[in-house]
Amino acid sequence: MESDLSHIIYIIGTAGSGKSALTMKLSEWLFDAEFNVVRLNLDPGVRQLPYTPDIDARDYVDLDQIAEQYGLGPNGALIAATDILVTKIDDIKHEINDFDADYVIVDTVGQMEVFAYRSSGLLFVTALSTKSVVVHLIDALLAKTPASFVSMVLLGASLKVRFPVPHITVLSKTDLISEEEIERICKWSNPELLSDALEIATRGHSKES
Amino acid sequence: MESDLSHIIYIIGTAGSGKSALTMKLSEWLFDAEFNVVRLNLDPGVRQLPYTPDIDARDYVDLDQIAEQYGLGPNGALIAATDILVTKIDDIKHEINDFDADYVIVDTVGQMEVFAYRSSGLLFVTALSTKSVVVHLIDALLAKTPASFVSMVLLGASLKVRFPVPHITVLSKTDLISEEEIERICKWSNPELLSDALEIATRGHSKES
Repeated sequence: MESDLSHIIYIIGTAGSGKSALTMKLSEWLFDAEFNVVRLNLDPGVRQLPYTPDIDARDYVDLDQIAEQYGLGPNGALIAATDILVTKIDDIKHEINDFDADYVIVDTVGQMEVFAYRSSGLLFVTALSTKSVVVHLIDALLAKTPASFVSMVLLGASLKVRFPVPHITVLSKTDLISEEEIERICKWSNPELLSDALEIATRGHSKES
Repeated sequence: MESDLSHIIYIIGTAGSGKSALTMKLSEWLFDAEFNVVRLNLDPGVRQLPYTPDIDARDYVDLDQIAEQYGLGPNGALIAATDILVTKIDDIKHEINDFDADYVIVDTVGQMEVFAYRSSGLLFVTALSTKSVVVHLIDALLAKTPASFVSMVLLGASLKVRFPVPHITVLSKTDLISEEEIERICKWSNPELLSDALEIATRGHSKES
């Protein structure tokens, strides 16, 4: 049996939460620290990436061809392509092992649920390595109110149960909100402060209606 | 100000959980019970539907044209199309009111997160009517183990916080699992039985590793 040589970092987050940007930046940072890093793009549907993937789902499945062959719309084709990709796990694992990298950063499918809530994602995380970690990006723009923050944290809890590996939660795209907003969101990690914020927000709503 | 004439039922669930099939069946059932029903398709990317929508997002936005015009992949185009659709909310609301229906069944975007975790979904739910309900489909195939069931329930909790309207949780596609499995999943609504099931499942995992 092949041993798991590399640590695998799965970047997960809702569409537009900055997965590809983090894959690029994190890999650059690890390169600079003289680690051997591999970037694996798992999105068969992506057109442009801010980095050049070392291993690419698009080399294994052709979304346009699948859409045409099976008469599928963009959603259906993406799901079919991801399901077909699962049959290539062994090949992808060999590619990973050939690189003998310290870290593999996996840029998962743009639409989170295709990776998170279909069997393919779990099969990847289970099969590729025993040394995996999930990085869950919470889009700061989607966590600005107490209720939406709670919604995102519950989504994160759902992902934690789904993938039985260590999780790191990251607030992404913080450059798009103010310092004050970042500070406020970070405070909500304290359940008491969150509860207060929710109460104030709810009172605001009642007044409005 | 226009009054909200119709009750609006938003069918939400992960890709492939049976949203369009339920939209069809529920509308047929309501027709038979002599209610006036409108079916609203909110998915600009869907190719085939098992019913004929009375109001259709595809009449308001053209996904292929948006993809070409902005040079976007399927994910990006879907998100852009949904964002553009928000600017048509008033027109859609007028269409709804013209029907003077008892119920409007809204078949949301195939990829749940486009509707649930971007601002567009919340804008629709808030703007279209004050008499709305969310029906959250849990795909039975994705809830067969205690851990995946918990993951789905947490996802549902996240949706509940996101959309401040009444929620109904539905186990869908039960024809694809056995009677025994349905019974087992239903039992997990009892926290004590769920806790037992999780413990047994975890013990199984430890033995395997």
